[in-house]
Amino acid sequence: MTVRQLPLPALVAACTRLGIPAVGLWREPVAEYGLAATAKLVRDAGLTVSSLCRGGFFTTAANLDDNRLAIDEAATLGTDTLVLVSGGLPPGSRDLTGARERIADALSELAPYAGERGVRLAIEPLHPMFAADRCVVSTLSQALDLAVRFPADLVGVVVDTYHVWWDDRAPAAVARAGAAGRIHAFQLADWTTPLPAGALTGRGQLGDGCIDLRTWRRRVEATGWSGFIEVELFNDGLWERDGLEVLSETTSRFRERVL
Amino acid sequence: MTVRQLPLPALVAACTRLGIPAVGLWREPVAEYGLAATAKLVRDAGLTVSSLCRGGFFTTAANLDDNRLAIDEAATLGTDTLVLVSGGLPPGSRDLTGARERIADALSELAPYAGERGVRLAIEPLHPMFAADRCVVSTLSQALDLAVRFPADLVGVVVDTYHVWWDDRAPAAVARAGAAGRIHAFQLADWTTPLPAGALTGRGQLGDGCIDLRTWRRRVEATGWSGFIEVELFNDGLWERDGLEVLSETTSRFRERVL
Repeated sequence: MTVRQLPLPALVAACTRLGIPAVGLWREPVAEYGLAATAKLVRDAGLTVSSLCRGGFFTTAANLDDNRLAIDEAATLGTDTLVLVSGGLPPGSRDLTGARERIADALSELAPYAGERGVRLAIEPLHPMFAADRCVVSTLSQALDLAVRFPADLVGVVVDTYHVWWDDRAPAAVARAGAAGRIHAFQLADWTTPLPAGALTGRGQLGDGCIDLRTWRRRVEATGWSGFIEVELFNDGLWERDGLEVLSETTSRFRERVL
Repeated sequence: MTVRQLPLPALVAACTRLGIPAVGLWREPVAEYGLAATAKLVRDAGLTVSSLCRGGFFTTAANLDDNRLAIDEAATLGTDTLVLVSGGLPPGSRDLTGARERIADALSELAPYAGERGVRLAIEPLHPMFAADRCVVSTLSQALDLAVRFPADLVGVVVDTYHVWWDDRAPAAVARAGAAGRIHAFQLADWTTPLPAGALTGRGQLGDGCIDLRTWRRRVEATGWSGFIEVELFNDGLWERDGLEVLSETTSRFRERVL
């Protein structure tokens, strides 16, 4: 999504050239290029699909069929992780607690199905500014409290610096999640201000904002975690630029600011 | 601030007419109208000043002198509460923990000064989307953890529904704060989406959003708290309308949605 302006073949070629070993994919461009064609494309390039984004949206509709489809797609793409964005409040609802319970219900249905296909579900807490319209799971602790109702190889969490950086309780939650083997994805974006209208597309390039990214990487790795680190930037400015240039810049920033 | 388009005399007259017993004032319009003149205006109208907004901004500058001035102003206006917005990260800083510690340092200096003048300091946690640029205190629990280092009659917290509604731990923090006599202000605004650019001026009119305001009132009052309830809306749309109409609408909404 960081370079959504790049068609998949160009993205895969650029990853190979830049030495990027893995890529997180989103369902929409995969569907557009074709699921089987995408699976072949990444396989032929020797590229790992670190995760598929996204299932979820459990709170506003009975999306179980579509989530089963997303699990199948993840399996076909050869990734072991499906990222879940849980969904916001149903229209007109003011019942946050109820919405959060519906997520647990949906996970109960989906976790066994995912497990049979070798796919782990990763609950992503989104920044509290998205609680109403995108995701009622707002903290890493909440996500983890949901995840621990299920086996660790079936349900875990996503640690995304953009969503959790402000939370003084997040470091302890990272330690708890890591110790339990429940960090199923680790994503980076920086926090910059002012936020754009709608707040969705303001995620900062690594190093442009106020998150201590290196400390977050060390914090996650200190739990024994050793997976791929994804960079997920929703940023109007980056999307308007040349995608290869943005990808190259992002790898440089990653080396300078994260490693 | 909800009707900042109203000059202070018009605001005070409208409060009297609408049966509003108390008003929260901001320092800027008070300074513009004159501190002594404002104190006389509200006193003559029999109106209570529920709080003065705001001191704080401890993290980016040594604002102690200005905060002492704010305490003096509060005392002159006859209010017992000065609301504190703590400040964001200093420019270029990525040290959230350090910024939070500086707030405690400033409170140590200011609390005795405020106590001698009969003014309580009220730490307002702001929504995490403001952590970088306005307030590194992002949850009620954090605010309370800071407050409890000082006597309850000197330092407490603000419960503002707009800032804490998403937080599953906020209800427990309300109970803890109330039991300790540390709820020094209670403010209402509703959460509406999409957020406007900059996120600051999108606070919804009561009932327009997804916060269960009545439940929050009951939750606060269940602790034994019985103070004035302030409605604090930063809203471009409301500011563009006739102030008397907005104030009247707000009192109606308060009766329908809060009481």
